[in-house]
Amino acid sequence: MRILWIYAHPERHSLNGTLLDAGLRTLDSLGHEHRVSDLYAMDWKAVVDPADFGGPGAEPTAPGRERLIVGAAQERAHGRGELSADIRAEQEKLAWADTVVFQFPLWWFGPPAILKGWFDRVLVQGFAFGLKDEAGTTLRYGDGGLAGKRALIVTSVGARESSFGPRGIHGPIDEVLFPLLHGTFWYTGMTPLAPFTVYGADRMTPAGARATTEALGDRLRGLADEEPLRYRHEQGGDYDADLVLRPDVAPGRSGVAAQRLDARDRVGAGH
Amino acid sequence: MRILWIYAHPERHSLNGTLLDAGLRTLDSLGHEHRVSDLYAMDWKAVVDPADFGGPGAEPTAPGRERLIVGAAQERAHGRGELSADIRAEQEKLAWADTVVFQFPLWWFGPPAILKGWFDRVLVQGFAFGLKDEAGTTLRYGDGGLAGKRALIVTSVGARESSFGPRGIHGPIDEVLFPLLHGTFWYTGMTPLAPFTVYGADRMTPAGARATTEALGDRLRGLADEEPLRYRHEQGGDYDADLVLRPDVAPGRSGVAAQRLDARDRVGAGH
Repeated sequence: MRILWIYAHPERHSLNGTLLDAGLRTLDSLGHEHRVSDLYAMDWKAVVDPADFGGPGAEPTAPGRERLIVGAAQERAHGRGELSADIRAEQEKLAWADTVVFQFPLWWFGPPAILKGWFDRVLVQGFAFGLKDEAGTTLRYGDGGLAGKRALIVTSVGARESSFGPRGIHGPIDEVLFPLLHGTFWYTGMTPLAPFTVYGADRMTPAGARATTEALGDRLRGLADEEPLRYRHEQGGDYDADLVLRPDVAPGRSGVAAQRLDARDRVGAGH
Repeated sequence: MRILWIYAHPERHSLNGTLLDAGLRTLDSLGHEHRVSDLYAMDWKAVVDPADFGGPGAEPTAPGRERLIVGAAQERAHGRGELSADIRAEQEKLAWADTVVFQFPLWWFGPPAILKGWFDRVLVQGFAFGLKDEAGTTLRYGDGGLAGKRALIVTSVGARESSFGPRGIHGPIDEVLFPLLHGTFWYTGMTPLAPFTVYGADRMTPAGARATTEALGDRLRGLADEEPLRYRHEQGGDYDADLVLRPDVAPGRSGVAAQRLDARDRVGAGH
């Protein structure tokens, strides 16, 4: 396997750093290739701006420049090979990988800005999405520029596990991470795996850290065969022309949980 | 009223810029005070790093420095008045405001990195959360450092409205934005209002833009009296000691929708 590991933690000497080191050793022992993007160490630029797009538009304050339409500017620069070198390097790593690990502390129930900016800047139209098949259908949700790759979130939270459970105060972790799992991974064609969440990270004992490292190793050893989270394919027949679930699909259900392919099995469970 | 308007769009000459200008004119006409943080114009630093924390820790590569624990470093620097000047300026604006508007294009189903970094850097422990009442209870979810303020998201998406509806492919907008509405606003005590979402922003006609501007004006005119989104207070009796909904609260329901105070009324609607 070829694994790209995106590490978005400001401190390498941390529980997350330990998990990264141990994870890479596990991948080595399995004979998998890996590359790491340590975003803080790379001083990764988080903010989309005209400097991303090369050419004349790279002068953000140039008088008389046309107004910036981000999606169009990204797509055009990508098509011309004019995206900035740091973006192209990440796209090259992504194209190389068959599996991507995104490791980050959960800040405000989402990725730190440095990682959010990685998605904003790297996953441009024409590369990650907005591609069409031979019939002219736009490939999205289950298909797209990154189809066939698997994506694993490794995240750490201070809270205890119960509070991220089905009826926990913070919301179920897979619903809190829906913008990544469904809106980013699945949208671009990547297959999302269940997040590997480290709970109580602030109060972790040495024994707890060893158990967590071991559990991550187990996940990595089973990576290729693991059953992923199953969302619905946009083109799979579940949606009408307005991109709404057809009445016979998960009847009476709504919300993000209804986008899970197993939603119909969970009615009894109260989802 | 005193309104802080956080604008996180890279282009001022855009539909979003038009909405901002019109919104500020409406606030003026109502006699409300307002201040604007135009994050791109301010060249707002998105990424949390040791330079945020002042003092010796401000040297990110200083040999022998203690390892960085972000939450603790933020809280300590806040307590000592050593957070960097840009962060303190935003905190001062927040403390001044009774209402905060967050305006941004929805990128990857969340805020652009520049705004995510505003939350990551400004809402530190000891300021926005982690405060305790006289009995020693930590104030959170419905109470906290920002209690009493109202928060309104103004966001633009390319997609049509149906696709963000209860059974739409992207998920209901209030569930997609749950990390902000519930996990950030409500967590710090702010009262979240229903998001003002501009659909089909990529294909907006001049007439559509006028109607949208008018609709935003209506929202702003009713801001003080609007019925907010109702989530559950952490200390309101709905949660057990593990921060899980008690069995008699929204029985049989789960997921982020169950955190809405009106969840029990929505069973019949399939939520």
